[in-house]
Amino acid sequence: MTPTEKRQRLRAILNGTETISPATVFDALSARVAEAAGYSCGILSGSVSAAIVLGAPDMALQTLSEFAHQVRSITRASDLSVFVDADQGYGNALNVMRTVEELEHAGLAGLAIEDLVMPSRFGVHGALELISIPEMLGKLKATLAARRDPSLVVIARTAALRVEPLEKVVARVREYATSGVDGIFLSGLKTLEQLDAVRAVVTLPITLGSAPGMNRSDLAARGVRFHLQGHAVLAACAKAMQDTYTHLLAGNGPDGLQPILAAPEVMARVLKVADYEQWEKNYLN
Amino acid sequence: MTPTEKRQRLRAILNGTETISPATVFDALSARVAEAAGYSCGILSGSVSAAIVLGAPDMALQTLSEFAHQVRSITRASDLSVFVDADQGYGNALNVMRTVEELEHAGLAGLAIEDLVMPSRFGVHGALELISIPEMLGKLKATLAARRDPSLVVIARTAALRVEPLEKVVARVREYATSGVDGIFLSGLKTLEQLDAVRAVVTLPITLGSAPGMNRSDLAARGVRFHLQGHAVLAACAKAMQDTYTHLLAGNGPDGLQPILAAPEVMARVLKVADYEQWEKNYLN
Amino acid sequence: MTPTEKRQRLRAILNGTETISPATVFDALSARVAEAAGYSCGILSGSVSAAIVLGAPDMALQTLSEFAHQVRSITRASDLSVFVDADQGYGNALNVMRTVEELEHAGLAGLAIEDLVMPSRFGVHGALELISIPEMLGKLKATLAARRDPSLVVIARTAALRVEPLEKVVARVREYATSGVDGIFLSGLKTLEQLDAVRAVVTLPITLGSAPGMNRSDLAARGVRFHLQGHAVLAACAKAMQDTYTHLLAGNGPDGLQPILAAPEVMARVLKVADYEQWEKNYLN
Amino acid sequence: MTPTEKRQRLRAILNGTETISPATVFDALSARVAEAAGYSCGILSGSVSAAIVLGAPDMALQTLSEFAHQVRSITRASDLSVFVDADQGYGNALNVMRTVEELEHAGLAGLAIEDLVMPSRFGVHGALELISIPEMLGKLKATLAARRDPSLVVIARTAALRVEPLEKVVARVREYATSGVDGIFLSGLKTLEQLDAVRAVVTLPITLGSAPGMNRSDLAARGVRFHLQGHAVLAACAKAMQDTYTHLLAGNGPDGLQPILAAPEVMARVLKVADYEQWEKNYLN
Repeated sequence: MTPTEKRQRLRAILNGTETISPATVFDALSARVAEAAGYSCGILSGSVSAAIVLGAPDMALQTLSEFAHQVRSITRASDLSVFVDADQGYGNALNVMRTVEELEHAGLAGLAIEDLVMPSRFGVHGALELISIPEMLGKLKATLAARRDPSLVVIARTAALRVEPLEKVVARVREYATSGVDGIFLSGLKTLEQLDAVRAVVTLPITLGSAPGMNRSDLAARGVRFHLQGHAVLAACAKAMQDTYTHLLAGNGPDGLQPILAAPEVMARVLKVADYEQWEKNYLN
Repeated sequence: MTPTEKRQRLRAILNGTETISPATVFDALSARVAEAAGYSCGILSGSVSAAIVLGAPDMALQTLSEFAHQVRSITRASDLSVFVDADQGYGNALNVMRTVEELEHAGLAGLAIEDLVMPSRFGVHGALELISIPEMLGKLKATLAARRDPSLVVIARTAALRVEPLEKVVARVREYATSGVDGIFLSGLKTLEQLDAVRAVVTLPITLGSAPGMNRSDLAARGVRFHLQGHAVLAACAKAMQDTYTHLLAGNGPDGLQPILAAPEVMARVLKVADYEQWEKNYLN
Repeated sequence: MTPTEKRQRLRAILNGTETISPATVFDALSARVAEAAGYSCGILSGSVSAAIVLGAPDMALQTLSEFAHQVRSITRASDLSVFVDADQGYGNALNVMRTVEELEHAGLAGLAIEDLVMPSRFGVHGALELISIPEMLGKLKATLAARRDPSLVVIARTAALRVEPLEKVVARVREYATSGVDGIFLSGLKTLEQLDAVRAVVTLPITLGSAPGMNRSDLAARGVRFHLQGHAVLAACAKAMQDTYTHLLAGNGPDGLQPILAAPEVMARVLKVADYEQWEKNYLN
Repeated sequence: MTPTEKRQRLRAILNGTETISPATVFDALSARVAEAAGYSCGILSGSVSAAIVLGAPDMALQTLSEFAHQVRSITRASDLSVFVDADQGYGNALNVMRTVEELEHAGLAGLAIEDLVMPSRFGVHGALELISIPEMLGKLKATLAARRDPSLVVIARTAALRVEPLEKVVARVREYATSGVDGIFLSGLKTLEQLDAVRAVVTLPITLGSAPGMNRSDLAARGVRFHLQGHAVLAACAKAMQDTYTHLLAGNGPDGLQPILAAPEVMARVLKVADYEQWEKNYLN
């Protein structure tokens, strides 16, 4: 599947009628397992990538190059349509242009640029700060202008619900929508009323990061097309690592681990052993 | 801990009296979890790195740069003494010199160079082939000469037990030991008798990749200091991924996943959140 | 210009009637200067990349990742159709597939795979050795199969003229042409008669690395479409560096260097300062 | 030479009595030519690296990873003590810590962190803005804390002379000196009086970026130990490229280029051909 086809598939979801959740993926192995499980879309957030690459919390410490390297590992290994949370775009509007260039090149299907001040400013690291509406519009226009493939999906992400009163949030979203972006990402949503207020001013498809107590049909009816579900898979891997290491360090052999391991034939399938053996037959004989 | 200190710790294990097993690690997260579990040594094999980075089987398809990038992710995030299986050294003896340069720079504590022909030659991909003894001696001397830090541990790895009769294996090992390497790595060991035969001609510490049916005290008594236990953690992560993805794709919410997730406080500890918060207090206020 | 458009431009040259020479380029700056000078095609050879990245001679010491990194620097900065000499494809036929994957992703327009044994084998490093015809056919088929964009140009390069009698060379070329490659690259050509002998058996466009004493119309009449002219620009830069460093180290100020420097307005043009200033106006205000 | 030895050599220059100028270097080739010319110190500025890697002007568009990649290319190929202008440290004080980690790992000898707001803020891109003194002190302390090797040289760079009245500049420098840095870098110096005013409050060695109309003995007498001379070598290479490309594109053969090329024996020396041939003899035979 070409990058453009992956982008068109994501676009079709946004322009459809259902609410879809992507799999959190972060390396070639997770991409392959997610694909084998039946997923067609993946997401890599800055926080997950920072944990895998740096072992660091979500504090804007990873470079764009490091992030793009992980994206590429996923897109090379799978046909997933990969969406990323590109944080604030790694700097000002001109840095955003490079972010789009690098991530588009890495093969992703869509990205969100957020209106948060990142990294934290001196003296105010405890609080969330939003950039101004004109600054965010500059970033969104820069994002759209920097695309080479017009099918690349661009989403305006706002953290305003966590900082500002609802009417200001609505005003922001209305402005963001004028930039030509393909969708709006609301983080920190708490109620369906907030969602209704936003939907009253924009018709763009909505992406949500969390939706406490809301069911999928309520979300679908309100234009939510992409619904992130957190990044549990990272903690699941951490537990699997911990269980394995603790078992072995206690002097037990690897045999006792069988119940918590993927079967060898599953591993062979996700590593595409049959494909490589076929290539050996075709080209190395 | 400096790279030299990490190397000296590995050296002390090889020169000690016990048999130690390292944790298989492959990214910053696994390195942190292994360290938290109590490990002081880690191993990254080419096969595990290829699975994580490429989603590919163990067929010498990964570049030295990709492998070094993963090593660096581990050494940056942890104080583990990292040992790697550097396959055949990524080419001829001059490529071996670059391999040592890049991997030493990435911060590892020790590496093994193996006497296998890799990648498979045209027409013979099904069978294991060994390089000649003089060629292997050239590679080992190149490895030793390319070290900048003399504390970097260099191990000669042989697959001869899987290919040649025992007396030829013994002859190989005796020759390899003359190069000045710090230890011998025997892959494919099946019996204690094989081990005894090797020990009769060399006093160097032994590394093993598998030791079916042998117990640790038998190994320790025969000079085995480093005993790899396979790479179960990769299959454990694959199963954790699969369980998570299957659960979520079936429409269940993330809440039901709690039993298979590392607790938030565990995640905070392995991501060193407290350190970063302290640095924010110290330098961003 | 998209990668596909760059590839189609290179393809049009190969299928045209003229003999074209590409500019040797190796980083973003050289790519921009070449483009400004009027070039539409660039070439990066392994030897030039090794000199820039490693300071090493042409001995297959650079990794595929390092080479792809340089290619990407060129393709990101310019619209040149970039052709590369990908040596032996960095290993066996399966490694060739990765080479194609990585270099195609880096945005190149065409690549040549050569029939030389690389890196040098133990004990025979002084002499050129060719791989067998079936092995080369396996590599060429693997190259063609690994392309994602069918417009990517694939050339079979042979060093046979430097090793074998002419009739064997002709036999090789005839076989290589059956694989479906887009052209034949002859290195070490000495006479027009050699060229005529090859042209008697294949109609594919020819690429040449050197053509001592032959003029362009003779070459064009015999199907030569791409003619490399060596990599003088690297030695020109080395001399410019040497002149600059020697001048300054002797205690002379930078002012005396003006005659050997590109003018500030030239530098501003190749660094696209006007574009960036326009983007600042559009998106940062 | 180990990284620590390279750092101690730079430290000895700062603590000496002479004014030294480093060579601007940006890849392995330039590092080798500079070393062959007699330089022991090199400098890589963000602007030069951005030109080589991105073909972009000096607008903070390059990632830390890209910059570190170029540094590593220089330090791997040469024994130069490499000093870098690390701009604002690629973000806030926590990003500065990663900058130190990555650049120290890349093998540099010293770095300067500057008190400029970078990248340009929305709406104010035309003007230089300084961060506050407390913010800069936080960054300097973070830099010093993030060093693993205490011999790594840390310099506080200020652009205050280009923005503030002299008494404010002096106050800044006095504060910066309290952080424990190894030196002060003044950019935009216009007169010896400015230098005298700074020297009246600090005894730390001074680094200068330009010193119009001042001679070396005046500078040495005032504690200037490191004096950058601009980056003419980049424009010299651009002219060499332009001359070569123009010559060849006009249909002239490479032979006519001899006068502007480094001789083959010079190229062989900077590419260390003799070393590699010796290694082939030692390890590949």
